[in-house]
Amino acid sequence: MIDSPNEECGVFGIATPPTHQDIARLVFYGLYALQHRGQEAAGIAVSDGKTTHLHKGLGLVAQTFNEAIMAGMSGHLAIGHTRYSTTGSSTLANAQPFRIETRHGPLALAHNGNLVNASALRSELLDQGVGLTSTSDSEVLVLMLAAAPGKTWLERIAACMPRWKGAYSLVVLTREGVYAARDPWGVRPLTIGRLPDGGHAVASETGALEVIGCDAIREVRPGEAVALHEAALIVRQALPPSAPLALCTFEHIYFSRPDSLWDGQLVYDVRKRLGKMLAVEAPAQADVVIPVPDTSVPAAIGYAEESGLPFNEGLIQNRYIGRTFIQPSQAMRRAGVFLKFNPIPSVLNGRSVVVLDDSIVRGTTSAHLVSMLRQAGAREIHLRLTCPPIRHPCFMGVDMASYDELIAHRHSVDEIAQLLQVDSLHYLSLEGMMAAIGSSSGYCNACFTGEYPFALNPIFTKTGFEPNPE
Amino acid sequence: MIDSPNEECGVFGIATPPTHQDIARLVFYGLYALQHRGQEAAGIAVSDGKTTHLHKGLGLVAQTFNEAIMAGMSGHLAIGHTRYSTTGSSTLANAQPFRIETRHGPLALAHNGNLVNASALRSELLDQGVGLTSTSDSEVLVLMLAAAPGKTWLERIAACMPRWKGAYSLVVLTREGVYAARDPWGVRPLTIGRLPDGGHAVASETGALEVIGCDAIREVRPGEAVALHEAALIVRQALPPSAPLALCTFEHIYFSRPDSLWDGQLVYDVRKRLGKMLAVEAPAQADVVIPVPDTSVPAAIGYAEESGLPFNEGLIQNRYIGRTFIQPSQAMRRAGVFLKFNPIPSVLNGRSVVVLDDSIVRGTTSAHLVSMLRQAGAREIHLRLTCPPIRHPCFMGVDMASYDELIAHRHSVDEIAQLLQVDSLHYLSLEGMMAAIGSSSGYCNACFTGEYPFALNPIFTKTGFEPNPE
Amino acid sequence: MIDSPNEECGVFGIATPPTHQDIARLVFYGLYALQHRGQEAAGIAVSDGKTTHLHKGLGLVAQTFNEAIMAGMSGHLAIGHTRYSTTGSSTLANAQPFRIETRHGPLALAHNGNLVNASALRSELLDQGVGLTSTSDSEVLVLMLAAAPGKTWLERIAACMPRWKGAYSLVVLTREGVYAARDPWGVRPLTIGRLPDGGHAVASETGALEVIGCDAIREVRPGEAVALHEAALIVRQALPPSAPLALCTFEHIYFSRPDSLWDGQLVYDVRKRLGKMLAVEAPAQADVVIPVPDTSVPAAIGYAEESGLPFNEGLIQNRYIGRTFIQPSQAMRRAGVFLKFNPIPSVLNGRSVVVLDDSIVRGTTSAHLVSMLRQAGAREIHLRLTCPPIRHPCFMGVDMASYDELIAHRHSVDEIAQLLQVDSLHYLSLEGMMAAIGSSSGYCNACFTGEYPFALNPIFTKTGFEPNPE
Amino acid sequence: MIDSPNEECGVFGIATPPTHQDIARLVFYGLYALQHRGQEAAGIAVSDGKTTHLHKGLGLVAQTFNEAIMAGMSGHLAIGHTRYSTTGSSTLANAQPFRIETRHGPLALAHNGNLVNASALRSELLDQGVGLTSTSDSEVLVLMLAAAPGKTWLERIAACMPRWKGAYSLVVLTREGVYAARDPWGVRPLTIGRLPDGGHAVASETGALEVIGCDAIREVRPGEAVALHEAALIVRQALPPSAPLALCTFEHIYFSRPDSLWDGQLVYDVRKRLGKMLAVEAPAQADVVIPVPDTSVPAAIGYAEESGLPFNEGLIQNRYIGRTFIQPSQAMRRAGVFLKFNPIPSVLNGRSVVVLDDSIVRGTTSAHLVSMLRQAGAREIHLRLTCPPIRHPCFMGVDMASYDELIAHRHSVDEIAQLLQVDSLHYLSLEGMMAAIGSSSGYCNACFTGEYPFALNPIFTKTGFEPNPE
Repeated sequence: MIDSPNEECGVFGIATPPTHQDIARLVFYGLYALQHRGQEAAGIAVSDGKTTHLHKGLGLVAQTFNEAIMAGMSGHLAIGHTRYSTTGSSTLANAQPFRIETRHGPLALAHNGNLVNASALRSELLDQGVGLTSTSDSEVLVLMLAAAPGKTWLERIAACMPRWKGAYSLVVLTREGVYAARDPWGVRPLTIGRLPDGGHAVASETGALEVIGCDAIREVRPGEAVALHEAALIVRQALPPSAPLALCTFEHIYFSRPDSLWDGQLVYDVRKRLGKMLAVEAPAQADVVIPVPDTSVPAAIGYAEESGLPFNEGLIQNRYIGRTFIQPSQAMRRAGVFLKFNPIPSVLNGRSVVVLDDSIVRGTTSAHLVSMLRQAGAREIHLRLTCPPIRHPCFMGVDMASYDELIAHRHSVDEIAQLLQVDSLHYLSLEGMMAAIGSSSGYCNACFTGEYPFALNPIFTKTGFEPNPE
Repeated sequence: MIDSPNEECGVFGIATPPTHQDIARLVFYGLYALQHRGQEAAGIAVSDGKTTHLHKGLGLVAQTFNEAIMAGMSGHLAIGHTRYSTTGSSTLANAQPFRIETRHGPLALAHNGNLVNASALRSELLDQGVGLTSTSDSEVLVLMLAAAPGKTWLERIAACMPRWKGAYSLVVLTREGVYAARDPWGVRPLTIGRLPDGGHAVASETGALEVIGCDAIREVRPGEAVALHEAALIVRQALPPSAPLALCTFEHIYFSRPDSLWDGQLVYDVRKRLGKMLAVEAPAQADVVIPVPDTSVPAAIGYAEESGLPFNEGLIQNRYIGRTFIQPSQAMRRAGVFLKFNPIPSVLNGRSVVVLDDSIVRGTTSAHLVSMLRQAGAREIHLRLTCPPIRHPCFMGVDMASYDELIAHRHSVDEIAQLLQVDSLHYLSLEGMMAAIGSSSGYCNACFTGEYPFALNPIFTKTGFEPNPE
Repeated sequence: MIDSPNEECGVFGIATPPTHQDIARLVFYGLYALQHRGQEAAGIAVSDGKTTHLHKGLGLVAQTFNEAIMAGMSGHLAIGHTRYSTTGSSTLANAQPFRIETRHGPLALAHNGNLVNASALRSELLDQGVGLTSTSDSEVLVLMLAAAPGKTWLERIAACMPRWKGAYSLVVLTREGVYAARDPWGVRPLTIGRLPDGGHAVASETGALEVIGCDAIREVRPGEAVALHEAALIVRQALPPSAPLALCTFEHIYFSRPDSLWDGQLVYDVRKRLGKMLAVEAPAQADVVIPVPDTSVPAAIGYAEESGLPFNEGLIQNRYIGRTFIQPSQAMRRAGVFLKFNPIPSVLNGRSVVVLDDSIVRGTTSAHLVSMLRQAGAREIHLRLTCPPIRHPCFMGVDMASYDELIAHRHSVDEIAQLLQVDSLHYLSLEGMMAAIGSSSGYCNACFTGEYPFALNPIFTKTGFEPNPE
Repeated sequence: MIDSPNEECGVFGIATPPTHQDIARLVFYGLYALQHRGQEAAGIAVSDGKTTHLHKGLGLVAQTFNEAIMAGMSGHLAIGHTRYSTTGSSTLANAQPFRIETRHGPLALAHNGNLVNASALRSELLDQGVGLTSTSDSEVLVLMLAAAPGKTWLERIAACMPRWKGAYSLVVLTREGVYAARDPWGVRPLTIGRLPDGGHAVASETGALEVIGCDAIREVRPGEAVALHEAALIVRQALPPSAPLALCTFEHIYFSRPDSLWDGQLVYDVRKRLGKMLAVEAPAQADVVIPVPDTSVPAAIGYAEESGLPFNEGLIQNRYIGRTFIQPSQAMRRAGVFLKFNPIPSVLNGRSVVVLDDSIVRGTTSAHLVSMLRQAGAREIHLRLTCPPIRHPCFMGVDMASYDELIAHRHSVDEIAQLLQVDSLHYLSLEGMMAAIGSSSGYCNACFTGEYPFALNPIFTKTGFEPNPE
């Protein structure tokens, strides 16, 4: 995607036999495989059954950890997190895992998602006279767990789940074990795998389980709380799964790694089918099909296969792109500098080009991209998007944009085509998208339709976001 | 002192007219003047009546803050802290001020001292299902304040004070103001001054108020809680002052700056009188009087004046001594390397020397010092200490040592003289010390006598320290 | 390429009208576009005609520079460098540009390439009693320039060029201007462009000139020295171009960006033609063609187009791969963890797969990749490489490997196929490769043929590398 | 001293038996003991007879080195440096030791002092076509050594010494050994000692030799070059000592540690005699004698002893003073904030005070100090200085100030007394100072008299400083 929504978060948990020597390394590689879900902060908490070691920092996983830090983190139980801030400001105080001391011993938690009743739960805690040290949902979750009834942590997690409204895929670390839980709508993914040498791991995406050699991978089912043990899983259906579910469609469109499974489907295959469906719904008289790298490559291959048009690379992504705080000068902007991508003139010059992308959020960067394709000689530009227009913000863990920022909230498709100056513009239809996904599990399409899976705090619909309590 | 107890903490608070532009700078210089009370961590919290900015870091005040950080801290209310860890491990999580969000808005607190019932209060909070994020007393204090009854913060502070047993001199920052409170025993110092351009400041020592230009300086009285306002102070005697008080004698002997007032007396003058009293109690046939720099200089001057013996410098303190983590090699130790001090041979060689020091804690470094004086040619060494033998640990905010480490707990004065290989050794008597101090306010001399000002948790008397909950 | 040779270096230079305000920013973006040529160190030197500012550091360009550093670098003349160390150890002392003070004022230089007579030139300087502060060729170059005859810097550069044997594409900064020079064999690329608002820039690749908006791009010709001026170029043919030239073939195969021109050809197009030629030379009975990302994508598209087989992605490159110093554990290696790429099972499972890659250097990583493809279910693997076997090291600025490390130096193609356990293995023939490149300019194919373009110091052919003088 | 001249540099060298394991640690502690001679940068170079390891950084010795860095520096030969920049800008490029590669192998050098013909020597090198990478004298020294005639390094050093005009106390490290040399005027100190376990060390001050356990300490004689060996010293009188010598008086007055020997005299004793002589030359009707800490303490003790007036501390130096970049606000300045010292009111209030200091350079800080003493209640202030007025800059390695900045260059003693608002002001006479020093070796008193020990480049006398070539 050319103007990406702010991404979300990745969680990871692992419980191995107590003889395991190097568990932090496995968490590191699990988080490394989830890096695309959040680049702002990373953290790992490890327990040896007595002491809990926690290290977290701002930046990429590989920037936050080094061998010296890893060496100080021994144990056989661990959780980790890679974060994009959806609520709370982007500070170390809000980085996860979040750890506290409770009457039952230390408790650490990391989660992906967003509670829609977080404000109410915060107020409730404050009214009880409890003080809060951060602005993140995570602290609300751990403080509620600390006070929850129940003899075991699994019971306490199950006792809290009915109070939590919204999207949450979470992992919990205590002296006794590692736990995982997922909201009854199943908004965000969460999957469990078996380790080859004993033990279990849990991760936001299957790709992170494969990277550490897991097999026998299954989802944490919506509404389920699970205790990971060396030999077995203890499963408790804390809440009945919502009917229908509200799986996030955007995991297919953009978030997940192409080699991950979501709702039992390989994301790569779904993206290719989305491209094929677009070729059926919105064919084009053109010379070549090109993707906006790198999410849209399978869709472009699918479109090309279905349409019979040749696939080619028309844009090269800068391999070493990274965070730079050096801003281009005005002269450079005027000169059409485009740092993230470079055009391949021989593919574009004089050609009629079908450009596959996943979505348009704000539209400004897309306009810039179209202008670059024109400068490289593209005769006609037919933009094809693998989902319907995004007209509504997400309140379930994705910081897309507010209503006013969404180009499709303010403009019709025809107007967008004009604004972007493309020769044709087609969004995949909702029906076409769901047919390409090919599942009847129940999906959340609120960002396209405005039909949210649960009642929202009225403040959401006005401002687009819950007010930050700080 | 040659083998210094781990020092304690310094607190600072300030409330100015809302027009003040540069309050963080005043806190910085206040903490800078309190640096001798703790070099492990420093922190400042500033409020503009709405937002609270907090910055803290490990290290000296001058290492923790720079102009860029200061520029981000605007407001007219502020508190600060410089820390030596007395409880809780030495990590950033335990650095102060400690800040939380409460039902009444943000709350930040910093304190000097040690609650002797902290464990019980922690357990009580945990049993209520409250989670704790750190191991410091400060979190216990803020969480109790957050839940306390009362319409104003001053009322809430007053409501909590009866529950807190032990030594505390604390400062509190909220959106409404800056508050100060001191335990009814008055163990640790806390003083208030008026700013020349309006407003008030509070600090652990008078020296820190003078450095920012305060006048009209008075103590926060034992048992008092005070709200600092631009124009006036609102004072509430939350608890009656203990009768007698338990002012820490060691503030006179070692902790406080010589230019600070403690119990209304200039510490420099007290130290000089301690030296004079020692000359009366323990005269010596000698050629010269030298101090162990730099705390004992006034005592040595006093001893010299009283005895008629000449004062001189026999040991030069390394001006640039600082934290180095490079350890001397065995060969260097064998060669008698002594980095902190260097002897002046012309003062020592062939002389009978009276050496003034304030105290001996463990004794190992003193033995080393004596051996260095011998190598420099001292013919006789008469060691004089400005207080009685330290035979008991402190549980009121000074991390001196445990019972087993205290040389005077394990050995008689004669044995110590033999161990140190000095020609004579005299500690000032309790009576002599109190006479030199010359006040009847009531002092805590527990480290000399074992008579603690309040009942201690039995665990203290066994292990010397409260168990760390982490 | 799966086991990449250590890459080389990128140089950049720019001369603008004296009114230009923000030249360091242009150099930054030029180096950013050359980042793929070296990630170990980066540096920029800027002159305002009087003072020369130099900043260099270890790491990526975006890590080495920030706005504060840029703000301190004003001027209208500048050069920059992004480095992979080919000679000299990887330390800041060897980072470029290299700056000295000379009798003619300050002189800074940055270069790409490797002198084959550097040792002899170093010895010569040392024998003259000159001291050297680094182990890099750059210092040899600047010290020779400092002592060179000539009235202008262009004359001095031209005077030195006959003494320098080997590959060099260099940029020079003095108070008077910016200069560029290229060896008579033309081994490494170097191109000049005109800035839209006046002035000229020079860069290792055309892509770096386009990024800052240059037009009228042309090569610095082999043997040429050029002075860049605001309005014009002063060109001096210091040495006749070698006949034939020795342009590095590997710039086409691997080094250059696909959107750069090399020898007048778009590298993307050359790579696609190499794939087509491979389809002709080495067809395969297969179901799908996949590239090893991301260099080999155009070759795979070419192979697919020519063969009629479908193109697909079978391997996904980790978007956030970066330098991590955390090494996988043995267990992870055993479990087949493969961090750089992840397989797409639906593309591979049960399929006969043609895998396009550019080259094999050591072979170990390729074997690992093949095993991953097998685990993902690939039924047959037909590996196709876009160049002949690499049997000889490069001594012209590419740190590929020594003789003993090169798998093709020790093994025949059949043996390599067996070692890698592929069903078929074909390297493109030398003739096929040159035909696909389609130019008769004269190329260096020494890494394939062992026929070096100039006589080598005998020490090279024995050890593979010139001894490091330090 | 209250407004200190910028200090100078400290050098250290050591040669031990090849079995020595931990030589860098000895250098570290040697430099630590020389820290007062320069706080801007520190560096250590170690050789094992083959490889030379060099580490240097900006800041204090304890900030620049840690155990990890020390662990990488093994060998039995080493030199070190602690720097205050006297020429060249304060950058890492100018930090010492300075290391180059020569035809005879690696060469590292560190020095204290300033060549008065450095500009001429630089020009000479540049005219020979040699390039220079820094602006420091050190590079001139090493490049001349690299090109010098002679079979051994001792011969080469001796060959260069006649060309070097000015003050230099230098140490040299090569694969063959460690060398020391001192200019024939003997301006700066340099002393050699024997290590208890074999080998020799050389240092700017005797205090640094004592700290590592040396005995048999002697000076490097003016004009001497020495090779340090495990078992013996090889001494070469390269130049006859100047008659008379030009030992720096200011080493006695201010620079050297009080426990160091300079010209065979303990500096502490000299300072005490300076105070006694002042009491004779400039008695005062007063109540108390106080020093400006900490250089002037012995002089104040001497003055008190001679005059019969009581000695006391009237000013306490902040123990934790260090580099802070936070500047006091205007309001703080107005309020009389004085961070470096705090007054002791009981010593000053209502008293007539004799204040002992060593010197006044610019005068501004002294005026501030006087005002602080007045605020603390001092009735009369009698300022006594242990040397004559400083009326001329130093060109031999001390960056005091330029002519225009020197208060005594612009004003008479009476005017200075008025400017400072003291009741009386007396400088020690030149004769009195020399009598107190009590040696006829020959001293440089140019800063008092303007009679420099050697002819100066005319540029010096005009601008006060040699122009910086960069």
